[in-house]
Amino acid sequence: MTTIAVIGSGSWGTALGMVLADNGHQVRMWARRADQINEINTSKTNSRYLPDVTLPDNLKGFTQLHEAVVDSEVVVLAVPVKAIREETKKLLEAAKRPLTVIHVSKGIEPGTQKRVSEMIEEEAAAYSTLKAVVALSGPSHAEEVSRRQPTTVTVSSLDVNAAQLAQDLFMNQNFRVYTHTDLVGVELGGALKNIIALVCGVTNGLGYGDNTKAAIMTRGLAEITRMGVKLGADPLTFSGLSGLGDLIVTCTSVHSRNWRAGQMIGKGLSLDEVLDQMGMAVEGVRTTQAAFEMAQRYDVEMPITSAIYSVLFNNVKPHEAAGELMGRVKKHEEEQLTEHTRKKD
Amino acid sequence: MTTIAVIGSGSWGTALGMVLADNGHQVRMWARRADQINEINTSKTNSRYLPDVTLPDNLKGFTQLHEAVVDSEVVVLAVPVKAIREETKKLLEAAKRPLTVIHVSKGIEPGTQKRVSEMIEEEAAAYSTLKAVVALSGPSHAEEVSRRQPTTVTVSSLDVNAAQLAQDLFMNQNFRVYTHTDLVGVELGGALKNIIALVCGVTNGLGYGDNTKAAIMTRGLAEITRMGVKLGADPLTFSGLSGLGDLIVTCTSVHSRNWRAGQMIGKGLSLDEVLDQMGMAVEGVRTTQAAFEMAQRYDVEMPITSAIYSVLFNNVKPHEAAGELMGRVKKHEEEQLTEHTRKKD
Repeated sequence: MTTIAVIGSGSWGTALGMVLADNGHQVRMWARRADQINEINTSKTNSRYLPDVTLPDNLKGFTQLHEAVVDSEVVVLAVPVKAIREETKKLLEAAKRPLTVIHVSKGIEPGTQKRVSEMIEEEAAAYSTLKAVVALSGPSHAEEVSRRQPTTVTVSSLDVNAAQLAQDLFMNQNFRVYTHTDLVGVELGGALKNIIALVCGVTNGLGYGDNTKAAIMTRGLAEITRMGVKLGADPLTFSGLSGLGDLIVTCTSVHSRNWRAGQMIGKGLSLDEVLDQMGMAVEGVRTTQAAFEMAQRYDVEMPITSAIYSVLFNNVKPHEAAGELMGRVKKHEEEQLTEHTRKKD
Repeated sequence: MTTIAVIGSGSWGTALGMVLADNGHQVRMWARRADQINEINTSKTNSRYLPDVTLPDNLKGFTQLHEAVVDSEVVVLAVPVKAIREETKKLLEAAKRPLTVIHVSKGIEPGTQKRVSEMIEEEAAAYSTLKAVVALSGPSHAEEVSRRQPTTVTVSSLDVNAAQLAQDLFMNQNFRVYTHTDLVGVELGGALKNIIALVCGVTNGLGYGDNTKAAIMTRGLAEITRMGVKLGADPLTFSGLSGLGDLIVTCTSVHSRNWRAGQMIGKGLSLDEVLDQMGMAVEGVRTTQAAFEMAQRYDVEMPITSAIYSVLFNNVKPHEAAGELMGRVKKHEEEQLTEHTRKKD
């Protein structure tokens, strides 16, 4: 039995807290809002994020971050990418012993183009309380995890022992956890797939069907892989759970926020209108900006990313961007697949 | 303008005939049933297979196979895999000049483990009228193609000129055609993905959600790739339109026959009951048998194929097979991905 803090009590943090509680651990979940923590502790529910789910008794809520963290050596960090730096500082300040931080956020920071584990490491430089960072990623709707449906995820870290610790804490019959040594590939796959989900939503909003979606996903994974290989990732990682698996679950489900945001854009709403309506983080938007920067900086061809960037930030109409994308003339399929992907062979 | 025979007037043959007719070609479509041909020629509809679609005037139906074939140098062969040998013989017999046969069927023959192009070549040995065989494959619901929605497919042949001819005949603004030189990979991807679609249907019938589906698809593509590499295919082909693309469209749509058949099996129906209810070819069933034979013959690990084989043919209960599949203990994701896939590196 381990005491584990969960920072953030949205749907994903809560679902992961439930897995840990199912495994017999003491889970101390933090949220800013007192009414939400009150509901968690008295009704054993978190109805805004996971309706119809009863929380286990060994999952408790706290409004003070230091109360959640103080007795823990392991922290699950489940906040939007935008909040990663701030929350990292707070939890390392509150920590009494070296922390293993398991982050479950998927995005890249615009401007710096840093992955989440890099952001955490950067902030940790000012403290002596970070032991290791682990990324947990994979095809996993929170709602299904909370209903204990069979789910598989990947954990990766530069510190093999930390990845194995995360695996041991989370693994159970319904929640299968695989370790992976390619941290760069695992984080990039989870982050960049949100861009493709946005685009799949846009094509749906434009009235296109499954054939178009499958083409976008196929070429989308190819451009994610090209960028990953350029940054030193193993191309095979993108064919695994945290790459292809997560791409599938995010692009083919109407429950994905990124997909839904894309659909509204395809129907003609502006980015501002969409973000207003969503009221939750749409990680793909900021990640599109970061990936566009990366494509230019590293000179990697990312036509799908460029197309959605021009729609989100340069007022290009969705149907014009889509038409240009589908009409790109490459007569041999191998040409596009091999350009960069083969570099490692 | 070319005269092109289409053998078979199910949904896929009809949709492809429409693409060719849209491109200005004379399309001569054959079907056995006189009432269907009569409907095609008088009402310009094929309501059983493509409701709500009006056929172009330059697409005409014939009940005599030789009438469809006699003036053609190109034939689109769109019949179930079970009928490929028989129809190949008939059309080569009826041909007056050397034929380029574009086949659009996805399956492998149990017993011989032959791909469709190999079956056609074998039957053609007795005739002098086969010029070349082309496989057309990719993510393409017939219904969407008939509604002229953006679709991308791959054509592949041992004869590069034949693949380019097929590309030129079919290519238009909505129907993008890419050539590919890896015939083995293109045919195997299209055939073996039907097995994974069956399994995704089964897990849905058992009540599992999107997380499970994504895991099955990810590992399914890995085992398809392992088998393909063993048979000399390029592993990258399986990341393309005819591999991953087709896998996505078949596994994530309730319109897929293989998926629907799997769902009924997951809900407890026997294979015989399912085939009775479907009334159409479910290619994945026969291909499961063929792939199971191939896995044993070539000693390739195909756990998902083995699991569905045991359900279809050995009376194993779906939930037992699924439980065993999800519970396979492999602690590192790389282990399963690298085993065979890397062989070509």
